[in-house]
Amino acid sequence: MVGKVSRGDTFYSLVDAELRDLERRLLDVGRGAHPVFRDAVAHLFQTPGKLLRPTLVFLAARFGQKSDREVVINLAESLELVHTASLVHDDVVDRAAVRRNVQTVNARWNDDIALIVGDYLFAKAYALAAVLPDPEVIAIVAQTVFALCDGELGEITAGRGLPSEQTYLDRIELKTASLYAACCQGAALLTEADPEHVAALGAFGTNLGMAFQITDDVLDLVGDETDFGKTVGRDLLEGMPTLPMIYAVADQDGKGADLAARILAPAKSAADIGALLDDIRRSSGPERARQRAFAFHDASLRALDGLPDRVERAALREVADFVVSRVR
Amino acid sequence: MVGKVSRGDTFYSLVDAELRDLERRLLDVGRGAHPVFRDAVAHLFQTPGKLLRPTLVFLAARFGQKSDREVVINLAESLELVHTASLVHDDVVDRAAVRRNVQTVNARWNDDIALIVGDYLFAKAYALAAVLPDPEVIAIVAQTVFALCDGELGEITAGRGLPSEQTYLDRIELKTASLYAACCQGAALLTEADPEHVAALGAFGTNLGMAFQITDDVLDLVGDETDFGKTVGRDLLEGMPTLPMIYAVADQDGKGADLAARILAPAKSAADIGALLDDIRRSSGPERARQRAFAFHDASLRALDGLPDRVERAALREVADFVVSRVR
Repeated sequence: MVGKVSRGDTFYSLVDAELRDLERRLLDVGRGAHPVFRDAVAHLFQTPGKLLRPTLVFLAARFGQKSDREVVINLAESLELVHTASLVHDDVVDRAAVRRNVQTVNARWNDDIALIVGDYLFAKAYALAAVLPDPEVIAIVAQTVFALCDGELGEITAGRGLPSEQTYLDRIELKTASLYAACCQGAALLTEADPEHVAALGAFGTNLGMAFQITDDVLDLVGDETDFGKTVGRDLLEGMPTLPMIYAVADQDGKGADLAARILAPAKSAADIGALLDDIRRSSGPERARQRAFAFHDASLRALDGLPDRVERAALREVADFVVSRVR
Repeated sequence: MVGKVSRGDTFYSLVDAELRDLERRLLDVGRGAHPVFRDAVAHLFQTPGKLLRPTLVFLAARFGQKSDREVVINLAESLELVHTASLVHDDVVDRAAVRRNVQTVNARWNDDIALIVGDYLFAKAYALAAVLPDPEVIAIVAQTVFALCDGELGEITAGRGLPSEQTYLDRIELKTASLYAACCQGAALLTEADPEHVAALGAFGTNLGMAFQITDDVLDLVGDETDFGKTVGRDLLEGMPTLPMIYAVADQDGKGADLAARILAPAKSAADIGALLDDIRRSSGPERARQRAFAFHDASLRALDGLPDRVERAALREVADFVVSRVR
């Protein structure tokens, strides 16, 4: 067990040594930099979180033919920094105060500092990517940032209406699944895995990322605040329509327009949020979204069939199971 | 002549073909991306500006032993995108409405969009850097972004007092000179120039960048608004103390504390700004800062002595002369 998150699961134990190395490195990212950046790094990585993405990098790297531990950790660190940088910037855009039970950088310092801290983290991520021996993998890191930016722009420029299921799925593919795919596919490429295995791991990552985000969006509506580490109902507060809400509206027959308007209302009181949470929980929305997450989970497992039968493949299955069954 | 800026000077004509290619590429940066990013790119590069940094890349590349035009243009584009991305983010932090006579991205759209547009531009910059054949040059691009972030953090976390001359110089070295140095040194490294020439070009770039920024800060106080393309007195409005202000305060004998307090006052009326501009213009501050800029200019010329006597060396001299004699 490392940090504050229990890592008793087999999938963590297989890559425990790499994760410990990574945690040490992440805490060291601010060394030599401006004191405010050093403090922000210490703050951000004090609770390392689930480290699911690096875990995927380390497990996927085991399917390669050439394993250079140092290089694989560089990729994991690079992609984790891309992830962290994008969260820091997203929290500015979303005016979020808390993430993973910890104050956001914009809340603890301010928006301006969060903006620069994010830029710094992106720069560190690219500096690490730059020394990777495979230009294709370097390109994957940059392409992942493009996808994150495309997804974020899609989110903040979205019209006032409720998005379609497809628009929602496209957005989370850009904003979440692209990074999961990059972890799995990047690690496989870097370790010179068989092209079929690279493709299988890429498909696994994409489907896993979709399952992860839909589950996250369900938990935001039905989760227990203490477990979840975020404020429940945050998506409603921010007027961010998610799949369980889209399904809840579809479930209302004639009254869908009314629920949609309440979901999209710009300023909501605590009472509004409470009533909306009740109504959405009473609908089939959360359960239908769960089913959609399970479908992506199943697709991720099918992708694993293309890999050799190893303990790491079983571990990736466990990761997929964990992602849809977690309570936080 | 390309774009709206006169490029009659010899130093531009030597690299005119590369600059035209670069302008076309910059306008194309948004292709395939989110429509809002495409619009922002078109907006940002509608007036290409002075393109001094790419000009330095192209001139410095002529001192190398191996010239690959495509690779050199990639470096120039990458560094120009780093520059543009950092301006877009700085304008958010500074709440700036106009730059180069054009609305800023934050003013035309909003802060959130400017944040993501900047991230996108940085990602494009790194994607271009990633394909450069020299890992050392890729590292220079990332290190330049660290320097920009360090400088910006230093700026926004600065105490309320007037900085010392040294603090000011350290800050502009990070925020401006580092990029000029990266252009000159990166191009020389990339074209496998003699190590002595790489060092000479790096020193030239650093000193040129210092001269450029001090001149810019003087123009902000004494420039003609129509020529300068920025709002004169902006640094005063933002409470950003610059070298001519620091010297103006030092010039006041007993009354320096009063002037410093007026410069640092958080909210200033148009009348306050007008009175401050008058007082600073009447002091020796702007002239002393000019002298400091000339000293860096002279140091940049001395660095050029280490290079072979070619038409490109004469062109770099012209760039240095232009930087300290320009009115905008």
